[in-house]
Amino acid sequence: MNVKLTLSYDGTDFYGFQAQDGLPTVAGEIEKALQKILGEVPEIVCAGRTDKGVHADGQVINFHTSLDKMKEYNWLRALNSILPRSVRITHCEFMPEEWSARFDAKAREYHYFLVNQRFPDARRMRFASFCYYDLDVEQLNQYCKYLVGEHDFTSFSAADDPSRTKIRQIYKLDTMRDGDLVTLRVIGSAFLHNMVRIITGTLLTLYRKGEPPIRMKEILDGQNRQLARDTIEPNGLVFKRVYYDEKEIPQ
Amino acid sequence: MNVKLTLSYDGTDFYGFQAQDGLPTVAGEIEKALQKILGEVPEIVCAGRTDKGVHADGQVINFHTSLDKMKEYNWLRALNSILPRSVRITHCEFMPEEWSARFDAKAREYHYFLVNQRFPDARRMRFASFCYYDLDVEQLNQYCKYLVGEHDFTSFSAADDPSRTKIRQIYKLDTMRDGDLVTLRVIGSAFLHNMVRIITGTLLTLYRKGEPPIRMKEILDGQNRQLARDTIEPNGLVFKRVYYDEKEIPQ
Repeated sequence: MNVKLTLSYDGTDFYGFQAQDGLPTVAGEIEKALQKILGEVPEIVCAGRTDKGVHADGQVINFHTSLDKMKEYNWLRALNSILPRSVRITHCEFMPEEWSARFDAKAREYHYFLVNQRFPDARRMRFASFCYYDLDVEQLNQYCKYLVGEHDFTSFSAADDPSRTKIRQIYKLDTMRDGDLVTLRVIGSAFLHNMVRIITGTLLTLYRKGEPPIRMKEILDGQNRQLARDTIEPNGLVFKRVYYDEKEIPQ
Repeated sequence: MNVKLTLSYDGTDFYGFQAQDGLPTVAGEIEKALQKILGEVPEIVCAGRTDKGVHADGQVINFHTSLDKMKEYNWLRALNSILPRSVRITHCEFMPEEWSARFDAKAREYHYFLVNQRFPDARRMRFASFCYYDLDVEQLNQYCKYLVGEHDFTSFSAADDPSRTKIRQIYKLDTMRDGDLVTLRVIGSAFLHNMVRIITGTLLTLYRKGEPPIRMKEILDGQNRQLARDTIEPNGLVFKRVYYDEKEIPQ
């Protein structure tokens, strides 16, 4: 049985998705829960690893098991009754044996939340960063547009990223405002390590300093991490969803 | 100078509002910040103490200081730059010397958030409890109405409550639905220890078991904590605001 799970997590107290000895991680919690149900820990494949402090509304994982008596709904119940409340399984589906949460993913969507207020409420800052200066989303989108398309994103990749090629496809990158909440939304084929946080940090710095939007293209073309700006803090970042059907990707 | 501050906090990691030696508390953080600014810790008066794990959007405090050179806006900036992000000062106002955040408060408003979903997202559970069974707010309100008015709330008070009289006035108590979020809203003169959480826990238990609404009145009239049901968990509770003007209290 090839089990696909969609899960959400509050990443505040986790050292990221990937299991690490002796540290609380999302995968570590899932492994502990599967150990209780299956008596063994299957290999977990995920659509996109998230870093320490990053959240997810729609992470997707899969694993193989010989246990084939349990129905999808019972997987949901059993796992959620064992997992801490900071990790919730929201969907379960049985897939063909060869299906992979990672390799069948066509695109991933992340949101970065910014509260555009000088003194925001404390509860809003749990899942957002904040900006005291006024954010004009029309103007922000002028910077964003240069990153849409297929490019080498070396400038927006952490030095430790192990990928052979830094070429990625961004399908959509824009910002939108709802009251004093500004959301950066990005959909891409896949992302390099820290890529969304470096893009967001760079965008805000260029905007705040009044640099012209074309500077974003120059940073991209330079293919050098030193050209981009700071990696923004993780707590505003949410892994929203995975696209397995190319036709569903917004263009 | 009599300084009034409105503050919000994410109570997750605090042992309640009141300062306690060696434990992280909201008042403890404010005292540390005031120590840095004033070189001393003034006595802090608050509109309503909150328990471990309870949040606030609009707690109000005041304190007296001989420092009279700092403007209101600078108090906001200075305190927010020192305080952890889980405590944010949202307003500052200078008041007449005799004004008290506690004794001049005419009413307090609390909200209890319930996600009405079997498998809610993890991020929503940071500031809410959840109910897997369907909540009908019209029906819930049939139970609520018996508690509105001036009553002896002994049945809905923690055993350790030190108040001489358990008589309190509830101006408003109802539930409302927005999508799958159900909010219990209560406005009262003041609240006994755990009163909102015992009311919410009792309401949900009576509703779930299909008990008739009049049972709420019987529990109230019994004036005995043993008649009411469990205290619901703290994380869904938010201290929303304080009313200092009687005319603003919704009736």
